[in-house]
Amino acid sequence: MPVGTAGTVKAMTVEQLYEIDVPVILGNTYHLYLQPGDDLIREAGGLHKFMNWNRIILTDSGGYQVFSLSRIKKICSDGVEFHSFRDGSKHFFTPEKVIDIQENLGSDIMMPLDICTPFGTKGEDLKDATEKTILWAERAKNAIHTENNQILFGIIQGGFDVNLRKYCFERLQSIGFPGYSIGSLSVGEPKEVFCKITETLAPLIKNAPVYLMGVGDPVSILEGIHRGVDMFDCVLPTRIARNRSVFTKRGKITLTNARFERDFNPIEKDCECYTCHNYSKAYLRHLYKAEEMLAGTLGSIHNIFFLSNLIREAKLAILADEFLNFYQNWVKRYEGGSE
Amino acid sequence: MPVGTAGTVKAMTVEQLYEIDVPVILGNTYHLYLQPGDDLIREAGGLHKFMNWNRIILTDSGGYQVFSLSRIKKICSDGVEFHSFRDGSKHFFTPEKVIDIQENLGSDIMMPLDICTPFGTKGEDLKDATEKTILWAERAKNAIHTENNQILFGIIQGGFDVNLRKYCFERLQSIGFPGYSIGSLSVGEPKEVFCKITETLAPLIKNAPVYLMGVGDPVSILEGIHRGVDMFDCVLPTRIARNRSVFTKRGKITLTNARFERDFNPIEKDCECYTCHNYSKAYLRHLYKAEEMLAGTLGSIHNIFFLSNLIREAKLAILADEFLNFYQNWVKRYEGGSE
Repeated sequence: MPVGTAGTVKAMTVEQLYEIDVPVILGNTYHLYLQPGDDLIREAGGLHKFMNWNRIILTDSGGYQVFSLSRIKKICSDGVEFHSFRDGSKHFFTPEKVIDIQENLGSDIMMPLDICTPFGTKGEDLKDATEKTILWAERAKNAIHTENNQILFGIIQGGFDVNLRKYCFERLQSIGFPGYSIGSLSVGEPKEVFCKITETLAPLIKNAPVYLMGVGDPVSILEGIHRGVDMFDCVLPTRIARNRSVFTKRGKITLTNARFERDFNPIEKDCECYTCHNYSKAYLRHLYKAEEMLAGTLGSIHNIFFLSNLIREAKLAILADEFLNFYQNWVKRYEGGSE
Repeated sequence: MPVGTAGTVKAMTVEQLYEIDVPVILGNTYHLYLQPGDDLIREAGGLHKFMNWNRIILTDSGGYQVFSLSRIKKICSDGVEFHSFRDGSKHFFTPEKVIDIQENLGSDIMMPLDICTPFGTKGEDLKDATEKTILWAERAKNAIHTENNQILFGIIQGGFDVNLRKYCFERLQSIGFPGYSIGSLSVGEPKEVFCKITETLAPLIKNAPVYLMGVGDPVSILEGIHRGVDMFDCVLPTRIARNRSVFTKRGKITLTNARFERDFNPIEKDCECYTCHNYSKAYLRHLYKAEEMLAGTLGSIHNIFFLSNLIREAKLAILADEFLNFYQNWVKRYEGGSE
């Protein structure tokens, strides 16, 4: 799902997302809590109404931003104290507070406060962080006001320790959640570790969606699906589009490249997206070079359409029992390059 | 008409402009000549196809940008030598060259190369510049390849000298053009001077549209219409929108103002634009503060709708023979402020 940090998917209108048939967007709890504030969004009638989005909204736990953007003051058993990345002001997130915020936002799918362990966390530190994540998940579940009709996923942590990951999932399962996320993957670990953890966890998660957080490049998405993942989110498709890159079936291309100067073909001739229907690479290159905002919009439309279409094709392949073949051919072509 | 310097109206898609029923956009000859180049746009099939706009395109003469953005090397009887504002490269515009460029762009309405006299130009300098503008207009007309079905307006110069302006128009009229622009007004002169020149020239121009170049604030538009002007262009509505300001019937407001923090009403309750139909001032304020590109888009939609609607209302008032009343009440309310 496309990520909309500040109550919008960057550079896009909701209609442009509807046209691509995007079913879910992600709102960042951390950003919306700091600005404009979850109480303001509650007053506005919730995030759906505030931002004019009438499909599903998933909100993250804020944990990832707390650990990646903020100066951490301290982590204690009750929660985490941090400084705002905006103005340095001090804030304290507890599992209950983070549920309160997401109830104010009125998202459809909520996430519990978790500890995102940095690359390289090991031993007792890792165990301790995982244990806290489990206890916080339980406290988050108990904090929900069920009348709101919002659901809460569990987040599986445990770093790169497969057994700790399994242990974390089993504990979360015994608490009971309608869906499970795999957190703190795709943070720089070797591909084998990513695959090992995903393929160990996904089959254990039965009758519930498996959500791999923060993954958005096409190959990783297919690798995730191959191992049983159902949901992904990432800023990648819109971020690279604002930075002049778009997906093609033969790899990513950078539209400001000189070879596109007089290329009057669309990004992909057989692409059905709005951008490819109406604009040439030469035009897009010109917009990027002129630093026109429309460039980011048109690139984002293509990239989100591209990933949505990839998911659609993967689903069809699964239904036809041809996924493995589809997946291998797709990755081979994509990584073969020379669009 | 909204201005699209680089082959797009900044921050907007063509569909958003169609939805507002914008009939004409302006493309800047100077910018498009320098980048991506008019030869490239010709190869692309013309500016309409390149930027996916199927209504009227007017291109300016490049004169305004040559004189305002570039370091001028010299003005001679044949044309003007200048340095690119991008890379300092040297270029030479003649009346014929500027027609060639606009024929490559394939606009519907072209403008002849003119000399935009800076505020304060007087005496022989002003006369000389005006004389050159007249001679260049004739040369421009003679350079047209009529099979292209593009029309060329004349541009009336002459600084703040009413008699010189009249003289310039009479000379242009004897050359003969299907429309006349008034150039180098609204450049900082006192309002009386602006009004005097406009009300002297407009009645002289019979059976041809009168186009006041570079004017886009609502009050000046109404003052122009009051004096017989038919067409306007300006970057103002989109530029101020990107800079957080929007028009209301009671004056311009700045959406980042603290008083809009919890204002869940649209910019204007009775406005029929997409932005006012779907978004609150509180949401727009949040987007501007978060520096989201969508803010500029939604603000631009409102501002262009606002001016389009103003023109529609002015037309209806003229047809009902009530323009003076409409104009006076409108300006009184707008300048009264306190939205």
